[in-house]
Amino acid sequence: MERTTDNTAISQPGLALVAVSFKERLLKQVLELVGLPPVALRLWDGTTVAPVEEPEYTLTFEDPRSLLGVLVNPELYFGDAYSSGSITLEGDLVGFLEAVSRGLHRASPPGLLRRLLWRWQGRARINNLSGSKENIQTHYDIGNDFYRLWLDEAAMQYTCAYYPSPDVDLETAQIAKLDHVCRKLRLKPGDTVVEAGSGWGGLALHMAKAYGAKVRSYNISHEQILYARERAEALGLSDRVEFVEDDYRNIDGRYDVFVSVGMLEHVGVYNYRALGEIIDRSLEPDGRGLIHTIGRNRARPMNPWIERRIFPGAYPPTLGEMMEIFEPRSFSILDVENIRLHYARTLEQWLERFEDNVGPITEMYDPDFVRAWRLYLAGSIASFRTGTLQLFQVVFTRHENNVIPWTRDYIYQAEGHKLSS
Amino acid sequence: MERTTDNTAISQPGLALVAVSFKERLLKQVLELVGLPPVALRLWDGTTVAPVEEPEYTLTFEDPRSLLGVLVNPELYFGDAYSSGSITLEGDLVGFLEAVSRGLHRASPPGLLRRLLWRWQGRARINNLSGSKENIQTHYDIGNDFYRLWLDEAAMQYTCAYYPSPDVDLETAQIAKLDHVCRKLRLKPGDTVVEAGSGWGGLALHMAKAYGAKVRSYNISHEQILYARERAEALGLSDRVEFVEDDYRNIDGRYDVFVSVGMLEHVGVYNYRALGEIIDRSLEPDGRGLIHTIGRNRARPMNPWIERRIFPGAYPPTLGEMMEIFEPRSFSILDVENIRLHYARTLEQWLERFEDNVGPITEMYDPDFVRAWRLYLAGSIASFRTGTLQLFQVVFTRHENNVIPWTRDYIYQAEGHKLSS
Repeated sequence: MERTTDNTAISQPGLALVAVSFKERLLKQVLELVGLPPVALRLWDGTTVAPVEEPEYTLTFEDPRSLLGVLVNPELYFGDAYSSGSITLEGDLVGFLEAVSRGLHRASPPGLLRRLLWRWQGRARINNLSGSKENIQTHYDIGNDFYRLWLDEAAMQYTCAYYPSPDVDLETAQIAKLDHVCRKLRLKPGDTVVEAGSGWGGLALHMAKAYGAKVRSYNISHEQILYARERAEALGLSDRVEFVEDDYRNIDGRYDVFVSVGMLEHVGVYNYRALGEIIDRSLEPDGRGLIHTIGRNRARPMNPWIERRIFPGAYPPTLGEMMEIFEPRSFSILDVENIRLHYARTLEQWLERFEDNVGPITEMYDPDFVRAWRLYLAGSIASFRTGTLQLFQVVFTRHENNVIPWTRDYIYQAEGHKLSS
Repeated sequence: MERTTDNTAISQPGLALVAVSFKERLLKQVLELVGLPPVALRLWDGTTVAPVEEPEYTLTFEDPRSLLGVLVNPELYFGDAYSSGSITLEGDLVGFLEAVSRGLHRASPPGLLRRLLWRWQGRARINNLSGSKENIQTHYDIGNDFYRLWLDEAAMQYTCAYYPSPDVDLETAQIAKLDHVCRKLRLKPGDTVVEAGSGWGGLALHMAKAYGAKVRSYNISHEQILYARERAEALGLSDRVEFVEDDYRNIDGRYDVFVSVGMLEHVGVYNYRALGEIIDRSLEPDGRGLIHTIGRNRARPMNPWIERRIFPGAYPPTLGEMMEIFEPRSFSILDVENIRLHYARTLEQWLERFEDNVGPITEMYDPDFVRAWRLYLAGSIASFRTGTLQLFQVVFTRHENNVIPWTRDYIYQAEGHKLSS
């Protein structure tokens, strides 16, 4: 533990711990809690503590309240204090969050009580019909104009893109993701599709336009549904794509394909078995399904700040937890792909566009909103880079369906059933 | 329910159920238990009952004891009675077993008690150090000469092959499987590998010979170890491949790659967490791992006849159960592929060679042994065809390892690191 200020005198190095001030000891405790990342902590009065001689980042607590908040409930309060400006950072935000994330992995693993608490927290979200509606509208109905400023222009996708190589642009990668999903589903002209969670309609419209499918897509975000319907109209696809403003639990009919990209995060583990039943009653005997979701290697609750301030009710499951959807109904998992680094890249490109539009966004909302969203995007990059979050694409079918691809060449070598446009 | 004999007179069709003999009612009950497949059941005295007019299969109970046994414990006793010849079949054995398997899926789902019992059965296998040794030797030490008669000549692989197309021969498909595994592991010259369960050494030797890896392979089957060491000697690979006659729990050292093909079936769910710890202590920071195993869509015990007579201690897990290996240590699942139809094809080719060698096998053992193995191979074909069993290949790495492939092109498009031979 290096001390980079000299506002307390220490005569002998061995006495450092007892000689330093109470404030310094508090700061040291904060650093130890997060595994001693290369970060200097500074207080409003200039008191500074750093675990290395040349720290890459300096975090300043601008007032006593911000320090107290972080000591009492670090995971929740840090985000609030950063958003309000009462905690400030010198150095790259993503790099800082990555360093903290790596430090946390090094810190001692959680005990049984903490894990039980996590389990309870993670499962207690209210995602019943009305709770889901409120949760979803909090996030997705912020306003289409806001999302339009930093999502891709091609299909306005608010989910992980697929980069055939890391250097392609966001628009190309988002279309490649849509094609990747359609190929995995072996989508062909005339197929009927039900989608749980339409976003702004990007996938549904692509499936109809580029693959000749007939799509019914469910969503409870009113703003997104309006936008998606307008786009369908503009593209002349209203007869092939129906956007239904309703909960996925009310899906009816039978379809060749079930698809859900970026909705499972909002479902909640307690509802997985019911989701499996919905899929079971919706799929034709030789139907195919794909779920694309943020996930975890190990069960733990969503970061509480993101869960409260950004994504109410969200929970990224482990693969084991996801099996609650499939195993009770004997679905057969055909293929799982984890593309977490693609989400880090996607988020980098989103954050770049977000920063390019800080002016208009500040005008639409306020500086606190900008800082909160900056922290959320940067924190997500850090989480995907450090393996704290995963991105799973899971392809499945009924156990008795033998109309399944012989190898995975259909994803990589064949042309698929994409229509020439 | 058609009655194809006339040894009981029925005047009115509506009275059929009450008019038929006690024996016929028993047979009808057996058929209903298995979901009314198109199978006629016949007794030693000629009494016959069939659920359709022209049944594809006729199963004959040659004596009262065989009927009683199947009524009391069908899953165990059918295999024993078929092996001893006290139950005989007219019609294709694989087709019959497929029909029964499909019927069982149609029959009413198991209740809670039965599922709890399954859970207990599935988990109570004794796979501690000495129990495993006994279990493994029962099956694998039957004799190398026996397995040589019907496994592939290329690498003597007793696990699912990988068929680039369904019509390639067994030898080609088994080598393709080895390459598929090595590509998924991104194996390159100089890599160190630890293998849990060597079989007859096929994968270990291929990794050394075709990819320039240095392999240490663990196995508790004495016969297999002797064979594998001889092969290593003959191929001049003894300096690159070490076959250790020891349990996977005693693996030590650190390696670039952990691989296990067809051993997890013998581990038992209760030992998965310990297996995860072994992998964790054995893998280098950027190490890669692959587990290839028979699996299930839904947890249920191994067929008791196979578990008792053929594969003591065996249990094929669901993906959810497998996560007990990975999630407690935060391993990151990168890729899961299910190639169950490839195992059906592999088994077809094994059964064909087995039948071609019935003469020598009967001389080595006896007709009961031949019938038991015929039933086991045919039953396995049926299980993979009907989706009762799955074949999972799971690729994983440490959560923090970012040296991971960007896309899965490395499996399908690149040449890999295979040495030109």
